[in-house]
Amino acid sequence: MSAAPKKTVAAKSVRAAKVESKGTVPASPSGARASVRTVPAALTNRDGGQSARAAEAPPGDIPQRVYLFGGGKADGNAKMKDTLGGKGANLAEMAAIGLPVPPGFTITTDQCAAYFTGGNQFPAGLIDDVAHGITFIEQSLGRTFGHGGKPLLVSIRSGAAASMPGMMDTVLNLGLNEETVKALIAETGNARFVYDSYRRFITMYGDVVMHAPRKAFEEEFEHLKKARGLKQDTDATADDLRGLCIKLASVYRAQTGQDFPQDPRVQLRAAIEAVFRSWNNPRANEYRRINRVVGLRGTAVNVQAMVFGNLDDDSGTGVGFTRDPSTGENTFYCDVLFKAQGEDVVAGIRTPLHLDALKQRQPKVHAELLGVRATLEKHYRDMQDIEFTIQSGRLFILQCRNGKRTARAALHIALDLVKEGLISREEALLKIDASSLNQLLHPTFDPAAKPKVLAEGVPASPGAAVGRVVFSSKQAEEHAMQGEKVILVRRETSADDIRGMALSEGFLTARGGRTSHAAVVARQLGKVCVSGCGALEIDEVHQFFALRGVIVRAGDVISLDGSTGKVMLGEVPRVKPTLGQDFATIMRWAEDVRTLKVRANADTPADAHKAREFGAQGIGLCRTEHMFFDERRINKMREMILAKDVIGRKKALAKLEPMQREDFLGLFTEMNGLPVTIRLLDPPLHEFLPLDPRTQEIVAEEIGVQVEEIQAAVARLHEANPMLGLRGVRLGLMFPEAYEMQTRAIVDAAHDAMERGVVALPEIMIPLIGHVEELKQMRNIVQGVVDQVNIARGKKLEITIGTMIEVPRAALTADRVAEQADFFSFGTNDLTQMTLGVSRDDAEGGFLTEYVVRGIYPIDPFATIDKDGVGRLMKMGVELGRQVKPKLKVGICGEHGGDPDSISLCLELGFDYVSCSPYRVPVARLAAAQAAIKAGKGTLFK
Amino acid sequence: MSAAPKKTVAAKSVRAAKVESKGTVPASPSGARASVRTVPAALTNRDGGQSARAAEAPPGDIPQRVYLFGGGKADGNAKMKDTLGGKGANLAEMAAIGLPVPPGFTITTDQCAAYFTGGNQFPAGLIDDVAHGITFIEQSLGRTFGHGGKPLLVSIRSGAAASMPGMMDTVLNLGLNEETVKALIAETGNARFVYDSYRRFITMYGDVVMHAPRKAFEEEFEHLKKARGLKQDTDATADDLRGLCIKLASVYRAQTGQDFPQDPRVQLRAAIEAVFRSWNNPRANEYRRINRVVGLRGTAVNVQAMVFGNLDDDSGTGVGFTRDPSTGENTFYCDVLFKAQGEDVVAGIRTPLHLDALKQRQPKVHAELLGVRATLEKHYRDMQDIEFTIQSGRLFILQCRNGKRTARAALHIALDLVKEGLISREEALLKIDASSLNQLLHPTFDPAAKPKVLAEGVPASPGAAVGRVVFSSKQAEEHAMQGEKVILVRRETSADDIRGMALSEGFLTARGGRTSHAAVVARQLGKVCVSGCGALEIDEVHQFFALRGVIVRAGDVISLDGSTGKVMLGEVPRVKPTLGQDFATIMRWAEDVRTLKVRANADTPADAHKAREFGAQGIGLCRTEHMFFDERRINKMREMILAKDVIGRKKALAKLEPMQREDFLGLFTEMNGLPVTIRLLDPPLHEFLPLDPRTQEIVAEEIGVQVEEIQAAVARLHEANPMLGLRGVRLGLMFPEAYEMQTRAIVDAAHDAMERGVVALPEIMIPLIGHVEELKQMRNIVQGVVDQVNIARGKKLEITIGTMIEVPRAALTADRVAEQADFFSFGTNDLTQMTLGVSRDDAEGGFLTEYVVRGIYPIDPFATIDKDGVGRLMKMGVELGRQVKPKLKVGICGEHGGDPDSISLCLELGFDYVSCSPYRVPVARLAAAQAAIKAGKGTLFK
Repeated sequence: MSAAPKKTVAAKSVRAAKVESKGTVPASPSGARASVRTVPAALTNRDGGQSARAAEAPPGDIPQRVYLFGGGKADGNAKMKDTLGGKGANLAEMAAIGLPVPPGFTITTDQCAAYFTGGNQFPAGLIDDVAHGITFIEQSLGRTFGHGGKPLLVSIRSGAAASMPGMMDTVLNLGLNEETVKALIAETGNARFVYDSYRRFITMYGDVVMHAPRKAFEEEFEHLKKARGLKQDTDATADDLRGLCIKLASVYRAQTGQDFPQDPRVQLRAAIEAVFRSWNNPRANEYRRINRVVGLRGTAVNVQAMVFGNLDDDSGTGVGFTRDPSTGENTFYCDVLFKAQGEDVVAGIRTPLHLDALKQRQPKVHAELLGVRATLEKHYRDMQDIEFTIQSGRLFILQCRNGKRTARAALHIALDLVKEGLISREEALLKIDASSLNQLLHPTFDPAAKPKVLAEGVPASPGAAVGRVVFSSKQAEEHAMQGEKVILVRRETSADDIRGMALSEGFLTARGGRTSHAAVVARQLGKVCVSGCGALEIDEVHQFFALRGVIVRAGDVISLDGSTGKVMLGEVPRVKPTLGQDFATIMRWAEDVRTLKVRANADTPADAHKAREFGAQGIGLCRTEHMFFDERRINKMREMILAKDVIGRKKALAKLEPMQREDFLGLFTEMNGLPVTIRLLDPPLHEFLPLDPRTQEIVAEEIGVQVEEIQAAVARLHEANPMLGLRGVRLGLMFPEAYEMQTRAIVDAAHDAMERGVVALPEIMIPLIGHVEELKQMRNIVQGVVDQVNIARGKKLEITIGTMIEVPRAALTADRVAEQADFFSFGTNDLTQMTLGVSRDDAEGGFLTEYVVRGIYPIDPFATIDKDGVGRLMKMGVELGRQVKPKLKVGICGEHGGDPDSISLCLELGFDYVSCSPYRVPVARLAAAQAAIKAGKGTLFK
Repeated sequence: MSAAPKKTVAAKSVRAAKVESKGTVPASPSGARASVRTVPAALTNRDGGQSARAAEAPPGDIPQRVYLFGGGKADGNAKMKDTLGGKGANLAEMAAIGLPVPPGFTITTDQCAAYFTGGNQFPAGLIDDVAHGITFIEQSLGRTFGHGGKPLLVSIRSGAAASMPGMMDTVLNLGLNEETVKALIAETGNARFVYDSYRRFITMYGDVVMHAPRKAFEEEFEHLKKARGLKQDTDATADDLRGLCIKLASVYRAQTGQDFPQDPRVQLRAAIEAVFRSWNNPRANEYRRINRVVGLRGTAVNVQAMVFGNLDDDSGTGVGFTRDPSTGENTFYCDVLFKAQGEDVVAGIRTPLHLDALKQRQPKVHAELLGVRATLEKHYRDMQDIEFTIQSGRLFILQCRNGKRTARAALHIALDLVKEGLISREEALLKIDASSLNQLLHPTFDPAAKPKVLAEGVPASPGAAVGRVVFSSKQAEEHAMQGEKVILVRRETSADDIRGMALSEGFLTARGGRTSHAAVVARQLGKVCVSGCGALEIDEVHQFFALRGVIVRAGDVISLDGSTGKVMLGEVPRVKPTLGQDFATIMRWAEDVRTLKVRANADTPADAHKAREFGAQGIGLCRTEHMFFDERRINKMREMILAKDVIGRKKALAKLEPMQREDFLGLFTEMNGLPVTIRLLDPPLHEFLPLDPRTQEIVAEEIGVQVEEIQAAVARLHEANPMLGLRGVRLGLMFPEAYEMQTRAIVDAAHDAMERGVVALPEIMIPLIGHVEELKQMRNIVQGVVDQVNIARGKKLEITIGTMIEVPRAALTADRVAEQADFFSFGTNDLTQMTLGVSRDDAEGGFLTEYVVRGIYPIDPFATIDKDGVGRLMKMGVELGRQVKPKLKVGICGEHGGDPDSISLCLELGFDYVSCSPYRVPVARLAAAQAAIKAGKGTLFK
């Protein structure tokens, strides 16, 4: 293979496949060998290393524009997806390992990029290279393009580095004109087949290349069928179709003002341009936006000799997976249609047959296909998704790629491949998409379902929820009383909605991102949440919402997919989660290589229990404030906030203290023997206050204050930028009595636990430190309370006191901060917000999403840590901290803690642990193992 | 002098002054030499270097607790203010250079700190060291403390490192008891004097040390005077006073439950503790909070032999400045009172006499005083503020310190000292407080005025404003029509208040800090602003505001001091600014040493003109959005925001373009030949929209839209944290047409200017860059417009394109950002907000102020750059940027650009220029010169 394709010069010195035609239309390229002077790319033997090209080529930086494949050789290989697209790279790979691939060439993605940057101009030099590519195909097959007795037809297919099924354009049967039609009829003796191909080509070319309305062409066929009383397309005779072709040529002229081009080189150039353009068509752009496909240069274009599955009764087409993509079972999962083309299978017009039908009708082809399956699996060492065509009893492979699979299948296949000796355990671990394990933990919507998708919002809390629409907490309660499932739909949620939220299956909000109130509460409660659905228009008065023109009323059923952000009409069927033995085996293997510890973010005993089940090695973040949002407690919290002085605050806090103590005792009991990191009160106080006047009145009455006092507190606590305001340790220093109460509850609970034989290992964490002096002063206060309780309880518990690193300044001065900290826990949510200057709630679904689409940020920095910016600060933080305390314990408790790429970064930076939501623990465990393998760390498989 | 006082051991090996009593009560220490075994500190000869102490002392880390002075020697010196306080350090210095200072000792500030950290306990070891100090004084003067024929009386005075006049406590005449009273009467023959001193002592001790109500003591004197028909205190006879002392002892017993202590060592210990405690009394804390006195350990305590200016007719007291503190004139500016004590001068009961009176009455003392003046000025090489006492014809100097002075005097004195050969030009430049130059540029309130201060807010825009209170823009207009000056008082201001603001002298707001709308507009318009005055309660309905219980109605006159934040009742008289020749000379000298360039932040030709007058070398920041807040333009801006699509936006922008072009032409013309850095649109768009319903209606009508559209836009543009939201380059990328219009206006204006013979040097600056990719994409757009205009105008102007570094990520990745930037300008306001995670508007006057008071941040990070955090990022930014572009031009345009300490940091980091508001330009020029001198940089005085 050419080692540096972009740096080599693609000219003049190419060996290519020699013609060895086997008779009829497009022949097998097998064994074809030819040397073509003018072909632009070098075909090297797979084992032959570099061609002589490098030595012969003039110096310069001209990129290779066109990569040839066919005849057991190829310029490219499977690793060159960025340059050749997925399809082109695998065509090259298959050709090189001797599989029966029709010969062809791939125009690189760079040429597509050059087409656009050059102002939609065909890039200089490309036309010559394409001509050379055609010559290569001609010589491979002994056919000629656009003339001669054995004319060559080609397909022109898009193929980007990432799969974008159906988004871009394809032109088939290119090369047909009045002359080649006649020659092909003479060659095949099948006029009907040839005219059918010609009428398809004119229609497709008019549509795709000239953007003429497809309907205008299709109507002609409809007229014909009506006039001739035909029921199906296939009833048309050769003469019918010949007449149709003449009419289509007229339609073409009428629509485009030009004659249908007879020069196949003109056809080819126009078709290539059309495929280039289709990269930027609106639906392709929309697809990339929704699927966050970014950083690609453009589409490659594959020009390949046509093969015909519809030529005769010995022809056919098929698609399949080399193993069952749903279960992972080791069976050839394949569908075949005889006398049909690939699109017929995909279109689902006829019911495809099982592979056994092929075995019966064409045992030789069947055996050959089994051979291909074995070759591909052995070569790619993975399950493959393939497309093939049989032309007059000859098998051609048109595509292969690693097959998509469910998480369940991924586990099973990986284990089987190890058993079969194809891969090692490490490779097996690396083959599984760690994030996909989520599927095993949450119920998911049945992939076979075809729901009506109303819109997509921010996928804020995973899972599959179905329920009746309600617009208020009160409605949620009413339905819940009757045992009905509901989905709460709100512009945004607040503390006042908590009760209704707890009774709902999921939440749909118009505003807010992954850190909005709704999202945080959802992940907290294990509810599904789709947030930031900007298109959502709620009319509470008339009790309906509108979404892209569809009206959904209170009581109507919708389905929410918290993993994709999809909002769907009606009840979409779901499948239950399963874990099973494969999961256990993979997790056991992961444990053998993992070095990074995995903890969970959990605030309640129930969360902690779940986390421990999933293998968490401690709690990395207990957010104490969530304990106060509880319906029975929030008013006490409000009393504290509304108190006029420290005495009033202490009085209100005294009511909360026994509850906090109970909370912590529960956590310690669940996590017996494992560390529990407890973050003291963090959010700004205004979050606890009701905003709407009615609730303010209710609350005022409940806690016995004037409603004006609540309003005054709301006004007083209002901040222009609350994220950068009075919260975290700032609250702790201004109102130390709250932190004192929490500390007392923690230490007392630890003593209570120890007295019951539970090993409690609390770690107190102080949030939002920016300056060491904050930590020093707060630490003094906290340590004072710890000492007091220890004295009162007559026993000394050593409790570590550490800090979040979430303000950039804390990372920049981590050497100083470390002097006062027993541990660091990176809060990468806030650290990202402040380092990037981006308010996540405002930006997600807004400019930040647009930024990711435009490739400004290669990936959402709130999903995966921004390594260059935030990662750099983290590196400084760890290094500076450990300069002062070489054994400083360092972890992460931001949401990135459950993201595989971020986990990999944490390993690289020398973290001790990551912490993530309970349901992400298995993902994190596998990802940590994968990172260890990639880093060459860890004790691999004793 | 002892070189490392804190590390030496203060015991056993001390030489001290020998007694050489001159007869009567406290005698001169001059010539006293003694060696006292038990005195705790080493007295070394000024020129004698280290005492033998270091060699004799046992090893260890015990700090020296007590520093002796007197008899031509001292343990300390003037540089030890942190340890000895200002008073103690200068007493030591004066003693060492042989001035007549009564002997004494200073207890260090560390002992005060230890007193508090030890739980208000007298620090271990201190009592012994104090005893040794007393022995030293006793031996110096040949007197004995608390007994004997010549009893020693001492004063106990506080003295911190920073001056806190009158805030802490003092005890005089300590050492008196029944026994010493008698001995002193015998010694002096002046029973009246002795009993008067005793009655003062008992009162002061009861008040200061025992916290008994002073009134209870004073009432006894009143009773006495009534009973005896006396008019003045001085009418009381010795017998009267003896009787009074007996009564006061009873009062003392009644109030404290104890007998008045007869043991002077008990008195002394209690008085020292009282002075320690006074460091933390509420008024001292309040003083430090208001004056931002931070980072101090505590107060030192000076125990010194008493001298008496009221002993006889040859006694007196005086205070003064060695030069005129108001004008700087070289005349001895001194007041004397005969037969009086220092407090009598300060209290202003009797009118003090001119120095000539002393010359007449005591020519020898007068000559001696002139000698002291000369010695002090020669020694300190600066104007001194002194206090002295004459006791029976002997002169004692009790205090000296660098005298406070007006900016005018500072310039004059510095120039005179150079002329007199006392200091170099460089030293002269260093002597002037650069920030004080502001006084010369703004009118100031008459320092002699004694206004009623209602409250203090955030000093947000300097100057002295007087006017009638108005509460709305409309009222401001009404008053302005009648030619009246007004002050606009609002909870906070918005774009809708602009017209009223332009017509007001100043603004007073309840909310917001130095970057609030009111503050920015004020600095912009050159108005005075006091913002964030939290105590301000506005009742718009009844048209008054309340401030700490005082009601001020609409139409009442108030005065605002924008330099101190003071809000004062009525019209406080003002003095006009003057520049003059001294200013010009100092500025010329500054130019000779300055290396850092100084530019101005200016948005209008008028600002630019002013900046150039003040010596700005270019504009470092032109905030283009301020041009849109103009009354005639804001509606066009609103049209742009409300437009439904890009066509509508372009239409609205087209109306603004000629205005922008005119703005820029004006700027270029003013700055002919100097660079003008123009920042493209930065603030979030919601800032341009009206929030209150009435204005929304008016605006809707004016621009012909439905009011609902405005409301919808307000809702759509609302952000939870707008500082981290859609603004800066994010706006530029989402709506490129705005930046395109601005760029076109800039480049066209530059061409227009060039055609008129003006050398225009625009530099386009792109704000809020976080990722190089943002800059790259935006730069492409801007460069495209530059090229277009150049082509259209037929001439190529090279225009540099640079970026703000204000998002932490930009500094962290400055090497990448520099690839796309022609220059960097650090926006340290936002950089500080994001690095520290502090929203300035929310935090100033809130937790941040509290943080500074508590010493968490040693200084307000928005006034002076936080060197450890933000400074570190700046360092990274400059270094990384210059790794890629070694000659990258780097500046600062945050408000720190006018702060001397921040300017010094910029020089250290290798900046090319600083930019600040026009009125800060002279300050910055001087500060830059000072920084260059301190750094040893710059070509000093050719």
